[in-house]
Amino acid sequence: MENIFTDDYFMRKALQEAETAFEKDEIPVGAVVVINDKVIARSHNLTELLHDVTAHAEMQAITSAANFLGGKYLTGCTLYVTLEPCQMCAGALYWSQVSKIVFGASDEQRGYRAMGTKLHPKTEVVHGIMAEECSDLVTSFFKKKRR
Amino acid sequence: MENIFTDDYFMRKALQEAETAFEKDEIPVGAVVVINDKVIARSHNLTELLHDVTAHAEMQAITSAANFLGGKYLTGCTLYVTLEPCQMCAGALYWSQVSKIVFGASDEQRGYRAMGTKLHPKTEVVHGIMAEECSDLVTSFFKKKRR
Repeated sequence: MENIFTDDYFMRKALQEAETAFEKDEIPVGAVVVINDKVIARSHNLTELLHDVTAHAEMQAITSAANFLGGKYLTGCTLYVTLEPCQMCAGALYWSQVSKIVFGASDEQRGYRAMGTKLHPKTEVVHGIMAEECSDLVTSFFKKKRR
Repeated sequence: MENIFTDDYFMRKALQEAETAFEKDEIPVGAVVVINDKVIARSHNLTELLHDVTAHAEMQAITSAANFLGGKYLTGCTLYVTLEPCQMCAGALYWSQVSKIVFGASDEQRGYRAMGTKLHPKTEVVHGIMAEECSDLVTSFFKKKRR
């Protein structure tokens, strides 16, 4: 039997979170944190609702996963997020020592790679998982906004 | 009559917050947010108590000030913080569009300047205000920890 718990599997969960953000008129970004094939945190961008620039999906996912684990480090965890993290989120991920980051769509303007933010040396990165679906959702959002 | 509301005046408030962090056995960093010479948010590092790497003084101050203002942007505000912001906090300050950042001690290792984090182009920066007092508190903390 094949393992169903692939990167696509968990990115789909993150994408569901992003869709929830879309429905709430938030920039549609979603995230989940996984340890041993188990989702321990799920979140989506809430910057508008909370009037809070720090309420990105990843920030909430880090806080929520640490609460679940009872410790501040996310060693052994993978964060799945639909869009490439920004400076702030990459900086938080640096402190968390998360083992792996998987992101969907790239953010050429504000993504951490373009901005030169450093991740923790022990953090592995995979990107491009369901990139088109993740990116399409953001594009649709801004098209809707302009209408 | 001289204006008592100098950078030293507000940095002293931030330093009081840092001392509260010290008393709680947290890395002693404190912050206040000021608008029109009025403190609208005060906070100190709570990463240990909350088991949360995102609970830096600045992050809490940004959230708290935005709550007070009822909007997510901190235009017109000055953030005073005892230690140079890290990548995460500088990234959050970037999104907040805060008008001015005043920090005390420099962080040569993990500070946003060494890490190459970008602030918002409209954000003015002043540093070195009460730097010795701010730095001494952090040094004392780590000396105590090593004992």
